[in-house]
Amino acid sequence: MQQAPITIRNKIRHGELTRYTSGFAPGFVQCNLVILPKKYADDFSKFCQLNPKPCPLIATSENTGDFTIEKLGHDLDIRTDIPLYRLYEQGELIKEVTDIVDIWQDDFVAFLLGCSFSFEEALLAEGIEIRNISEGKNVPMYKTNIDCTPVNQLEGKMVVSMRPMSPADAIKAIGICSQYPKVHGAPIHIGDPAKLGVLDIDSPDFGDAVSVKEGEVLVFWACGVTPQLAIQNAKPDICITHSPGYMLITDIPNSQMKTATGDLC
Amino acid sequence: MQQAPITIRNKIRHGELTRYTSGFAPGFVQCNLVILPKKYADDFSKFCQLNPKPCPLIATSENTGDFTIEKLGHDLDIRTDIPLYRLYEQGELIKEVTDIVDIWQDDFVAFLLGCSFSFEEALLAEGIEIRNISEGKNVPMYKTNIDCTPVNQLEGKMVVSMRPMSPADAIKAIGICSQYPKVHGAPIHIGDPAKLGVLDIDSPDFGDAVSVKEGEVLVFWACGVTPQLAIQNAKPDICITHSPGYMLITDIPNSQMKTATGDLC
Repeated sequence: MQQAPITIRNKIRHGELTRYTSGFAPGFVQCNLVILPKKYADDFSKFCQLNPKPCPLIATSENTGDFTIEKLGHDLDIRTDIPLYRLYEQGELIKEVTDIVDIWQDDFVAFLLGCSFSFEEALLAEGIEIRNISEGKNVPMYKTNIDCTPVNQLEGKMVVSMRPMSPADAIKAIGICSQYPKVHGAPIHIGDPAKLGVLDIDSPDFGDAVSVKEGEVLVFWACGVTPQLAIQNAKPDICITHSPGYMLITDIPNSQMKTATGDLC
Repeated sequence: MQQAPITIRNKIRHGELTRYTSGFAPGFVQCNLVILPKKYADDFSKFCQLNPKPCPLIATSENTGDFTIEKLGHDLDIRTDIPLYRLYEQGELIKEVTDIVDIWQDDFVAFLLGCSFSFEEALLAEGIEIRNISEGKNVPMYKTNIDCTPVNQLEGKMVVSMRPMSPADAIKAIGICSQYPKVHGAPIHIGDPAKLGVLDIDSPDFGDAVSVKEGEVLVFWACGVTPQLAIQNAKPDICITHSPGYMLITDIPNSQMKTATGDLC
């Protein structure tokens, strides 16, 4: 039996679930997390607005210092409900921790960004094979030569995830993902990886390489790892993110991420 | 000043406009035409149902023998309102004529199919270059190795049209066209033409070759010429079609061809 998001969050909170969240609470949105002190929040909010494909902002703390985000989930506590967090200081990864209760600050603002898990589920539902899922791997991610639109010190290259598909499936996937702008939306590139500055598709910068079959086309989506690079460049005093693959499970159905108008940029 | 569809149809009817209809009545749907005797109509109707990408049926004669189709246009006369018709007998092209008043039969049924002009307009509106338009050519069309779903003697290969684009524009085009299922909808293939059995992209079977720039991806759409091949194979006693490029201009706005749900097949 499927468990409700709140049940899973409670287990995570109490250390009963410690693994990455892929496959948990199917049908519900999972989110990337970025927490920053208030003094950096306006810049990061603007960075999300200007770079909506890699940083599709779904929610923020209602008030500075809030660790509940009722809009995303009942009784949700952003300090405890993610299995693994990353602590950055001056843009450097210091350590990974299973909760941030002790390091929470009253000036923190949490940002929750859409995640590819939502669109992968929509693609699977249409019978499209997702290679990283069928091979039991983390999706391959690559640093590109595409500059994000900078906001003060927040600047960096866009990171993309890649899924190989038959041309027919790639067309279906583009049509489907165009309807999900809040979870990265339509791909940003198809075909030759060299156009993105990616010279070796078998050596991803993050995640695992997946096999590519004869006749398949490479499909590239903007990736939620992008803001982590910008934060490494901006070097804020402190920043907390989720650990890749260990996402926040929300009460929001994936279907709510679908828009009639679509996303064609 | 733009002329209303009815004004243009009247000029065509009276021999005052004799050229192909690309660029006329922007914003309004233009249609492919197939006219067959009643005894073949059920088969052709089923062929359209089973092959909706190349044969997106928009309207038929309300009653057998009707040459008006009020649903498509006020005072429309299907015998006179297209600039150039093709007459087939036993599947062979006999001649082209500027009206079919003298050869109209009481047992005729007219089928009107969606046309790529509608989606080309939607793509241009989003700033996407259409190579055949910018080079002032007819779109290149190719006979593929894809079998249509046959209905009795109606059988044949799918014909596709091709438009080269940057990968980014191809993604936008797929997203847009997915929303226009009644005018061929999403492309059926991207990338390697050999997968469709097309060995020389510079030698289209119909229309004109267009230039392909470095780094562009080839995007292939199902094409309204497809039913003409099936009819050549089925060899009905008599069949009338429009001449490629000389379409029926309707009163229906292109915007009505857009669906919220889209077309993902």
